[in-house]
Order: sequence, then structure tokens, then C-alpha cells
Amino acid sequence: MINQRLFQRQFQCCRLMATLGVNAAKFAMFAAICLQFSVAEAAKSRDGYGLWLDYQPITNTREREGYIKALSPWQVEGEAATADFIRQELTAALGAMLGVEAGPVGDYTHNSLAHPVARLLVATPEESAVIRSLALGDALTRVGQEGYLIKTTRYRDKPITIVTANTHAGLLYGTFKLLQLLQTGQAVSNLAIESAPATKLRVLNHWDNLDRYVERGYAGESIWNWHKLPHYKSQRYYDYARANASIGINGVVLNNVNADPLILTPQYLVKVKALADIFRPYGIKVYLSVKFSSPNLIGGLPTSDPLDKNVQAWWQAKANEIYSLIPDFGGFLVKANSEGQPGPGDFGRSHAQGANMLADALAPHGGNVMWRAFVYNVEANVERSKQAYNEFKPLDGTFRQNVLVQVKNGPIDFQPREPFSPLFGAMPKTPLMMEFQITQEYLGFSTHLVYLGPLYEEVLKADTYAKGAGSTVAKVVDGSLYGHGITGMAGVANIGSDRNWTGHIFGQANWYVFGQLAWNPEVSTKQIADDWIRMTLTRDDKAVNTIRAMMMASRETAVNYMTPLGLHHIMGWGHHYGPAPWIGEQKPDWMREDWTSVYYHSANATGLGKDRTASGSNVIAQYHAPLRQAYSDPKTTPTELLLWFHHLPWHYELANGNSLWHELVARYYLGAQAVAEMAKTWDGLEANIPPQLFKQVQMALAIQTQEAAWWRDACVLYFQSYSKQSLPEGFAKPKHSLEYYKGLSFPHAPGDGR
Amino acid sequence: MINQRLFQRQFQCCRLMATLGVNAAKFAMFAAICLQFSVAEAAKSRDGYGLWLDYQPITNTREREGYIKALSPWQVEGEAATADFIRQELTAALGAMLGVEAGPVGDYTHNSLAHPVARLLVATPEESAVIRSLALGDALTRVGQEGYLIKTTRYRDKPITIVTANTHAGLLYGTFKLLQLLQTGQAVSNLAIESAPATKLRVLNHWDNLDRYVERGYAGESIWNWHKLPHYKSQRYYDYARANASIGINGVVLNNVNADPLILTPQYLVKVKALADIFRPYGIKVYLSVKFSSPNLIGGLPTSDPLDKNVQAWWQAKANEIYSLIPDFGGFLVKANSEGQPGPGDFGRSHAQGANMLADALAPHGGNVMWRAFVYNVEANVERSKQAYNEFKPLDGTFRQNVLVQVKNGPIDFQPREPFSPLFGAMPKTPLMMEFQITQEYLGFSTHLVYLGPLYEEVLKADTYAKGAGSTVAKVVDGSLYGHGITGMAGVANIGSDRNWTGHIFGQANWYVFGQLAWNPEVSTKQIADDWIRMTLTRDDKAVNTIRAMMMASRETAVNYMTPLGLHHIMGWGHHYGPAPWIGEQKPDWMREDWTSVYYHSANATGLGKDRTASGSNVIAQYHAPLRQAYSDPKTTPTELLLWFHHLPWHYELANGNSLWHELVARYYLGAQAVAEMAKTWDGLEANIPPQLFKQVQMALAIQTQEAAWWRDACVLYFQSYSKQSLPEGFAKPKHSLEYYKGLSFPHAPGDGR
Repeated sequence: MINQRLFQRQFQCCRLMATLGVNAAKFAMFAAICLQFSVAEAAKSRDGYGLWLDYQPITNTREREGYIKALSPWQVEGEAATADFIRQELTAALGAMLGVEAGPVGDYTHNSLAHPVARLLVATPEESAVIRSLALGDALTRVGQEGYLIKTTRYRDKPITIVTANTHAGLLYGTFKLLQLLQTGQAVSNLAIESAPATKLRVLNHWDNLDRYVERGYAGESIWNWHKLPHYKSQRYYDYARANASIGINGVVLNNVNADPLILTPQYLVKVKALADIFRPYGIKVYLSVKFSSPNLIGGLPTSDPLDKNVQAWWQAKANEIYSLIPDFGGFLVKANSEGQPGPGDFGRSHAQGANMLADALAPHGGNVMWRAFVYNVEANVERSKQAYNEFKPLDGTFRQNVLVQVKNGPIDFQPREPFSPLFGAMPKTPLMMEFQITQEYLGFSTHLVYLGPLYEEVLKADTYAKGAGSTVAKVVDGSLYGHGITGMAGVANIGSDRNWTGHIFGQANWYVFGQLAWNPEVSTKQIADDWIRMTLTRDDKAVNTIRAMMMASRETAVNYMTPLGLHHIMGWGHHYGPAPWIGEQKPDWMREDWTSVYYHSANATGLGKDRTASGSNVIAQYHAPLRQAYSDPKTTPTELLLWFHHLPWHYELANGNSLWHELVARYYLGAQAVAEMAKTWDGLEANIPPQLFKQVQMALAIQTQEAAWWRDACVLYFQSYSKQSLPEGFAKPKHSLEYYKGLSFPHAPGDGR
Repeated sequence: MINQRLFQRQFQCCRLMATLGVNAAKFAMFAAICLQFSVAEAAKSRDGYGLWLDYQPITNTREREGYIKALSPWQVEGEAATADFIRQELTAALGAMLGVEAGPVGDYTHNSLAHPVARLLVATPEESAVIRSLALGDALTRVGQEGYLIKTTRYRDKPITIVTANTHAGLLYGTFKLLQLLQTGQAVSNLAIESAPATKLRVLNHWDNLDRYVERGYAGESIWNWHKLPHYKSQRYYDYARANASIGINGVVLNNVNADPLILTPQYLVKVKALADIFRPYGIKVYLSVKFSSPNLIGGLPTSDPLDKNVQAWWQAKANEIYSLIPDFGGFLVKANSEGQPGPGDFGRSHAQGANMLADALAPHGGNVMWRAFVYNVEANVERSKQAYNEFKPLDGTFRQNVLVQVKNGPIDFQPREPFSPLFGAMPKTPLMMEFQITQEYLGFSTHLVYLGPLYEEVLKADTYAKGAGSTVAKVVDGSLYGHGITGMAGVANIGSDRNWTGHIFGQANWYVFGQLAWNPEVSTKQIADDWIRMTLTRDDKAVNTIRAMMMASRETAVNYMTPLGLHHIMGWGHHYGPAPWIGEQKPDWMREDWTSVYYHSANATGLGKDRTASGSNVIAQYHAPLRQAYSDPKTTPTELLLWFHHLPWHYELANGNSLWHELVARYYLGAQAVAEMAKTWDGLEANIPPQLFKQVQMALAIQTQEAAWWRDACVLYFQSYSKQSLPEGFAKPKHSLEYYKGLSFPHAPGDGR
């Protein structure tokens, strides 16, 4: 329908023009009308597929002319596939934003001179005599393998803007950075940008099964159509790679960490190769999640013991097979001895012995192993949040050089709020890879507007005190604290086949902010939000400020209506949809205690919260001083984490003078209220947002408003059954009874593990 | 990316225009250039989402001017939602194709006069004084409730084209018909079209589960996002309804016939209502598949016995509940006592007793029951193809007035070729609804180009001889043979969340032809193909002819490389992907004999084929004379059905002089060869097809070429193991061994029942 409309307008332009009277004023006016039509019609056609790369025309003439003056004509030197892609991108972007034609392309040899009138030149020194002729000092040395340089300088006494780098990947990132400056309305007349990524592996983890079911996926089925691969190459694969490249993501784990061993069979490896070939020009490497018992399951070996020679030989042969198809294959991601997955523990071996065996198979090819620390199987009697630390800290220093241990940001499991995992800062000899969750398993699926930037920032800026004050998690992850050569950040993708990629338009912001932070963990997520809004929704300053404020508050709002004051893991059973603090009240024998809600909130007649101090599970001992001391006392524990570390009486008085019960209730109502206000605020932005995007968010906010109230009412009623206290003054009574909420069931809620 | 490009061009137009010199010639030329750009850019952006409604500009000036003269300005009278939709459609369609603006709208009252300059008027007599003032005779009486009239006449001494009907649905269908004339380049200067649908219920059956898994779905997951309904109303729901309306489909069964009882719970009925409200203005009613044991499963009753008063009361209450939400709810589709589904048989009751109970619950509200005849459970000892007839024929005349018995086109199960089901013509007192399969469960999923028009046409034109020669299946289905008041045709949808709706662009043609045949079973599917190609792919006559020839031959080609000479049901186990004639050679005890391939092809050392004559299962007795006699003798049995009715010696000589073995091999090779040629032919059409559509089909044809050869080689090798004969002269030896083909496994092939 989209193109018809654009088309209709264009067609009318042309018919009218052909029949119009001949005077310049008329035509200028007519041109302006055409443009207005175009802008309006194109806005109507925007459905979210274009993400933050749906380049819009810059309608401010002065601004546009300034960009044209500085950047047009442009050219890209080089013959590589990546150079071709950069040409396409500049053609589309500068064409759409500025209305400029592509510069002369494709007629360069490695040593030719650039077109003399070029104002923008994108090239590596190796491929450009012009770049080589410029005095760039050691800037290119500083930006390294993936970094870039964007510089306004002079060539043959003419001003020129260059985007240069040591690799094509660097050019790619630099180009997208330059385009971002235009998209966000920044000046480009005097640029001197030097940028290099803080982490080496910036990877999306897709929890996608081979039947296209996405575990914890809320945006439709997997975008990988394994059945039609390798022959059928969906356009979406290219658009996905482009989007990742635009935010510096350079790796993709294609399949679920709960891995199907078939992914390593020849039948599937040719499909993996097809995707790897598509992604390569975008600077993206392919990784696979592997099942540790593959040698037995598909290799026909009697064991998968990592110390067994035949097992080792099987993995080596498999690695050789993979690299013969995919020379730049990234490596393996492994979930072992966790939630029923097989692992070295099944054979009495350690995680290090398991990881190192795989590392040895990959090392000759330059591949890496990303070994997850998310384990809580072994010490069933030990409190869950302690187990990863207990199991991995002793292994520090025993992993191969090409192994990263991938640690979830929190000790439990991607909760709305947790303290950072004490493993960060506990394994100085081991590169620790951050694992964030982008998909909102515990944060409202794809119907809640929750900007995760502040959550990520809170974790990265947290101080571990591992080497004294300033030993932030960010410095652990980017390797600067211990000087690791290999570093990485992983994000569990929120991407599916939904037309808008993430189900919720604002889910795109979480994909975006993950990429930006993996490149630079120090940057402000407020600034990232601002950029994303301008690139995706609107460039109206007032609207941008309103939306940015909404985004920045949204995570705290979700914490308030779901799990305030350090509560955690009280979501619906299995699918984690909606509130269910009552799970475990009557626990069937098969149910693990640490899968229940009551295990985590520990509500009883006297109070609420999980005691993780010395009098309890003593998790605080896993943190460095002075955190250990601070967390040991509720008075010095941040209010936001209070019930995560302490079991406190219902009448416990908080800093603000409220009792625990009063504050708990107040925060639930505050959270639900804030969502209702978000919805109202959004309604006021209709004029500024492309209609389809506006409507999508509006419908989602209606659901979020309803579900926030559901969370509030169910949790307040449930905890009230323990506190035995009435609602404080001024809080309206829930509509339904606790029994009503307990009775709700959602057998087909999406994303459940299976 | 799409709109950026269009946009870029448009933007350039405008900038250039504003700066161009002022002389008319230049501008006219410039207008032409704009148009060329637009056409090219818009073509690039076409990805298949627009189906046959992706209105393209008519570039032939004479033709375009003719249409404009005849139809512009246009207007639609009436205030209903449907009238508004018709206005939108005409605005988009005539804007895109002709570049004309919308006529004045929204300022009519029921008795006002139409705008005097209108050249096209769309309205019911009830809502238009102009229509009432015209002498239309009893034409409107003839076209009935859903039919329409398109007429060139005169009003106030001026020529006027009218689209009129007794209902808004009729207007909708008439409008799309008129637009189709423009899309296919036909004259509109002197129209006199009267059209009414041959069948009353023209229904798509979605085999969609509530978790979005589509049984036998090959175009991605279900388009129904049950989790986000009722609040989140995807744009796709509207576009889906529009597409159906454009081909006269007026009913949709939302969920799988293997029904989840939860669909009838209040939690889901509000979601069903949301879809019904969206579909209503498009003339589409919603139906539900129901599980016969719902009273027990969700009603908490001890039984679901249709003769139990409480069960009857439960269904009546449920019907009342549904109609209170959805006043125009269509009714129930039921799969009972088939493939493990519960049914009246579980309580010793007949299909009629079960169907009538539901019919009685729906009757007060005007709802219908569509009761499937696809059963083969009861008489396990009786050959499967006979059972539906045995079970249903005796019930003829015992069903309520609002019950239709829905019969699959063939006695087995949607095979590439079967004889028509003998039930057609065996139940004169019962309205029999045709059930075609649009999704290609047995015909290559969504990667094989197989136009199903000829298959449908073959069945509909088949003569049952029930009342002597000329008693075609079409006449049974459209009610004309026995004068039934209620009639219908169902198609099992091939629609999923894939951007192009059906996975394969040519799958769209199967959706299209089903709708056209449900409206008029007598129309030529060759003409329908021609229209679809012009509306979807190209209007270049030479290309149209080439593609049409390809489509018309494609089904016979599939029969040849899959199941020539009447072979059937030798596909892969469960998922039905690829060849597996060996299934059942070693039959596990749990496997039903009539689920195996060997049951159907009955290959042995002496020969091949299933004996269904008197010497065998005697299915031929279920057919009327003279078919019964013809099928009893291989010499008078159509070669295409030979092995469906007869077990013949390998050396049996066919009419063309070939032995059975020779002909079998020849047809497999012919089929595979024809696919390879299709692929070559398609490559030659690149200049005529929008690039994305061209590439999609090209990739699919590469897969089909490979899989056709796989079918050929696997089947020839397998049957050779029985015929013990070498390949005839001139047929290349298969690349792999029979063991290789037997060893292939596809655990994640899509669409498997589960």
C-alpha cells in the first residue's frame, strides 16, 4: 500500500508538471508542494522495518546545504565487497537525506588518484593515494584494527572530509558514525573524530531453535529460515547484518545456548556457511552454540569426556570441517552443566577442562570459546546466587588464552534489578565477557516500554573495588583493569520475524544501546537515547526531550510495578509472563526450590526479603570491601537492593520514614501510575511521530498500562496476605481478589523454554 | 531501504525543479524522467507484500487517458465503514494507476444528489438517488445479496459508470472487479457486468495453533498474534482482510481443525472478537474450529455426549456467549473422530447426531456447522479411501439445514493427483462443501512452483454422473444439481507471517485462484492465471504468455516428479517433506498401516499399484456408472489414475507402447527435466519482473530443481529394487544410492502436525 501512495503522489507531480503553465515561481512552489507530499506520504509508509537507518530528508535548507557543501560529491575507494556496501549506503543515505547523487564510483585502482572534486573520501590508506598523502600522524595506529578516523582536512588546497581506517570494518563503522552525525543534526564542518571499540567481541546471542522457535523471543519466530537455507537467502539477512554493522556488532551466535547438536552436522553447516558468507562484508563473524555431548549424540562416540582422546580428536576434526567452510568462523558458545545441559561435570571434569578442550580445537584457526558461567546445578544445597562464583573463581588462571567466561550481569538471572555479579572482579586472570539480556524475558516481553540503557549503565559503572575504588565492571569487561588481550560483550537478542524486528519499536532502542555500549561502555545512555530517538522517531527537540525523559525513567518504573526494593524472580512460572509471587507455596516434588518465587522473596508473617548476609546465605562475602560491609547492614545497603540482601520486618522503617510495607505498596502504585502517565504523554506526541510507529507504541502502552496494574494488584494483595496490614491511606483497593490473580493462566504465552 | 530510495529520487526531482531553467519543454521532459525514476525505484521496492493489489501506474498514455476519461472524477456514496474502505481503495488504486485525485467524499446524506460531474459512481440504490433514478430493471434482483452490477450508462445526459449492488459487500466485490479490469488492461468504456457468487460460504481454513505454529504451514508462523490480541491490532490483519475481500472470500476459520479447546474460553473469545471487528467491513465472517470434547475439557462436564442435556445446554450457552460478542459469527468447523480427535463416536453417536447438536445451538443466531468428512478411524480393516463414503452416505438426509459436510477433493488426502471423492454425488440431500488445500503439504511446501488452478479445475469439472452426464462436482458443490440453499468452498490457507504472505510468490496465485473459483467454479483457471500474472508480476504480453504456460504445466510437472501414473502418499514420514516410498517396509507396531507408503503403492516383485477394483478394496463400487465400469479395467482407466485403481505388472504395456516400468521412469525424468527448464525460462524473464520478486522465485526454483531430481532418483531407485529392471536407454543413472536417500532425515522440516 505504501508504495502505491508514494507513487500516486509522484505520478501526480509528473502529470501536473507536464501540464502546468511555464513560470519559475509556480514550479518552485510546485517543487515545495511535491516535497511536502513526499514527506507526509513517506512518513505514513514507515512501519519500523527501517530501524534507526530509515534515513529521512533533512528539510532545514540551511542545515542541508551545509552538509552538501561539506560532503558532496563523495567517493569511496576500494574494490572489496565492504567498499561496495559503503557506496550503496552512502548513495541511499545521502540521496535520501540530502538529495545528492552518488559520486563517480568503481573506477579506481589501488594506486589511482581520487577524483579531484571529492569533498568526502572514504578509504583505507592502503587503497587510497590521497589518504596516504595526508599527514595523519599515528592516529591510525591508535584506532587499531576496527577503529576509524573522521577528519576534516585539506587536500590540494581544498577542504576534504575523510573517513579512514586500517580495515574495511573500520571504514564501515566510520561511515555509519558520519551518517549518524547528519541524522542527529550535528555539524560536520570541522571534524576530528578518533574512535576504537573498547571490547573486541561485540556479539548478539540468538536463543533461536532450529525449528524457528525463539526461547525468550517476543518478536515472532526466528529470522533464520533453516529449512530454506542455504539456497534461499532472505533479504532480511542482509538488512540484519547492515543494522548490526551500523552499531559496531561484529559477531552473531546463530542458535540457542540450549543447543541442538544437529547444528554441527554437514546438513546444517552448509546453511551456517550461507549466513556467514552474507555477513562477512558487514564485518560480522558467525559463532555457534554447541551441545557438549555432541561427540556422543552425533559423533557416535561412547563418551563426550573432554579428556578422552577420541573426543578431543572429534572436536578437532569438527573444527577443521567448519573452518574449511567458514575460514573466519568465530567460535563456540557453551552452556554446560546448567539447567539440564550436559557438560564436563558429567565426566567429573571441570569447566576449565571442558572449555580448554574446545579451545584447543579452535586455536589453530583463531577461534574463541565463550563459556557461560550461568550455573547452579552442582551445589543444590547452596543458595543459587552464590554458585557461579563458587564454581568458577577457583578456576581462575586455568583457562586457555582463547577462552572467555561469559557472565550474566547479575547473580540470579536478568532481573529488573540485581546487584552486579560478584564474579566481576573475582577472576583477574580470566577475560570475563559481559552477558546482557536485550530481549525482555523479565521486563514485559515486547509490550512494555522499558529502555534498558540505564540498567546496562548501572551495571557497567558499578565499582567492584577489586583493585580499589574505580575498579568498575566496565573496566573488568573492557580488559583495562587486568590488561586482557581478548574482551567481549554479549547481548541476548530481542530480534524476531516481526516486521519491526523487535515487536516493540522501543525494543529497537535496546538493540541499539547494547551495540553502542559494547563499543564504548563509558558513554552516557541518555545521549544514546537522544541519538536513537532522532534517528528513529522524530527530530523535533521538544518531542525528543519528552521521549528521552520517558525512556530514561522507564526501567525504574518497571522495577517499581514488578519488583521494587530488591525483590526478584516472582514472575509467572516457566514463561515468566506476569506476576506470580505465590509460586512455590505448594511446591510439587519435581519443582526445584530455587525455581520458585517464595524462595526469592521469603515473605512470612514477620517480614520480607532474602537474607544474603552472614546470618543468611552470606553472598555478601563474595563482594570486595567496602561493598561487603555496606551490604551487610540494611542501613548502608542501597534502598533499591534492600530486599535482595536482607529479610526485614514489615514495620522496618526506611530512610524516608515509611515502613517497609508502606514503601512497598507506594512503589507498586507509583510504578503503575507512571505507566498510565507514559501512555498519556505518548498520546500527546501524535503530531511528531510517523503514524504507524505512533500507533504501534500506543497499542503497546495500552497493554503495559493494564499489565502494570495487574502486577501492582496481584503483588500487593499477595504480600498483604503476609503483612496482614491494610493499604496505607490514599491507595485504591485492587479490583479483583488475590484468588482471581492466582487463577489466571497463560499456557500459550510466548518464549517459554522448551 | 525502499522508501529512502523512492524518497531520494523525489527529493532530487524537487531540488532540481526548483533550480531548473524555466521552459515548458524542459519541464515536460523532466516530468518524464521523474516518472521513469519512479517506476524503476518503485519496482525495486516491491517485495511481494502487495500481492495482486500492488497497483502499478499505467504507463501507456492512451490507455491511461481512456480510463481517466471514463472514470474520473469518481465518488462513493454511503456512510458505512465499507464505503469508507472503498473510498480508500479507489483513492490508492486510481491514484497509483492513473494519478487521479480522490473525488469529493463524505458529504452525502442518504437522499442527496450525487456530485454532477461524477463519471464513476459506487453506491447501493438505498444510499444513492442517482442509482435509484437509473433504469436497471431486475438486474439487482438477479445478483442477489453479494453480487454486483458494473454498468456504463447515462445520467443527466452524461455518460456514467456505476458499480452497484444490494449490499456493501457487493459494492466491495464490484469495486475490486472494476479495478481488476484496469490492472489487466481491459476496456471500461462500455461495461455491462452482472456477477453473483456461485457458492455462499467462501472460506479460508487456517490450521493455526494458538502458539502461532501453523500445521502444514510453510510461510512462517501464524499471522494471528494471540498473545498480543485483543489490544494490539497488527496492520497485517487489515491487509489480510483486504486481500480476501478482493477475491470474494467471505469467511475465515481462525484456528486449526485439530482444535485447542481454549479457543472457546472468554480469554480467547475477546481476541476472536477483535479480529471479527477488523474483518467485518471487508465482508468477512469469523468461524472457529472447535474440539468436540470442549464441554468436558473446559466446561467441567463429565461427558461431551451430544445427547446429554447438559452438554447441549453448554453448547447453547457458549453459542449465546459468542454471539453476544460477535453478532455475525459464522459458526463452527469440526474435525471429529478423525486422527485422534474426539467426536460423537466416542459416545456411540453418529456424525449427524454430533453435528446436529452444534447446529441447534447455532441455528437461533444464524450460524452454520461445517462438519468434515475426512475420517478413517472407525473401520480400521477397511481400505482408507473407502471409509468417508461408508460412514457418511448412510447419514444423508439426517443433517440439520444449517449443516454442511466438508469433503476433501480426493478420497485420500490432498495428493498431487487423486480421483474426486465419490462422496460428491453420493449425498443428494446434504450440502457438500468442497475442501481444497491451498497450502502445498504434498506439493513441495513453499519452495515448489505449482499452480493449483488446474488441479482444482480438474476436480470441479469432473463428472460424477450422479444424475447422468453433466453432474459435475462443481454442480454438486454450487448446489445447482440438487438445489441446496446453502453451499460452500473451503481452502486450507497457505498464509503465514512471511513478508510475501505465502513463502513463494507463486503461492499467492493459489490463494487467488481459490477465491476466484469459489466465486465461479466454471471460470477457466488459465484466464485466472493470466489475470494474476498481469496484476502481480508483469503486463508484458510476451512475458505473461511465458509465465502462464509455465504455471499451467506446473502441476502436471509436480505429479510427474513426485507421484506419476496415479501413485500417491509416498512422501516423507510425518512432515511429508521429500520422497519416502520405503516407509512401512519395516513397520513399527504403533504405526498405522494406512500411514505407510507401501500401503499405497503396494510395490512387489510382480508389479506396482493399489488394486481398488472388485478384486481389491473395490472402491470403484463407490462411483456411479459409467465411471465404475471404466475404472474397473486398466485399459479404460485414465493413465493418470492407473496405479491409484490397479496393481499392474511391471511389464504391463501402456497405450503408448511403453511398459509400466519404462513409463514410470520416463515420467520421473520428464518431471525433473521440466523443472530445470522452468528455472531456465524464469532466468530469461529478469527484465520483466520486479527485482525482488524475480530473485525470490529464482531462489525457490533452484531448490525445486534440486528436490525434483531428489524425488526422481529416490523413487526410481526404490521401485527399481522391486522391478529388478535396469533403467531404459537414455536415462542417466542417479548420483547416489538408494541407501543414501533412505538415510536422509529432516527432524525440523516445517509444518509437521504436533
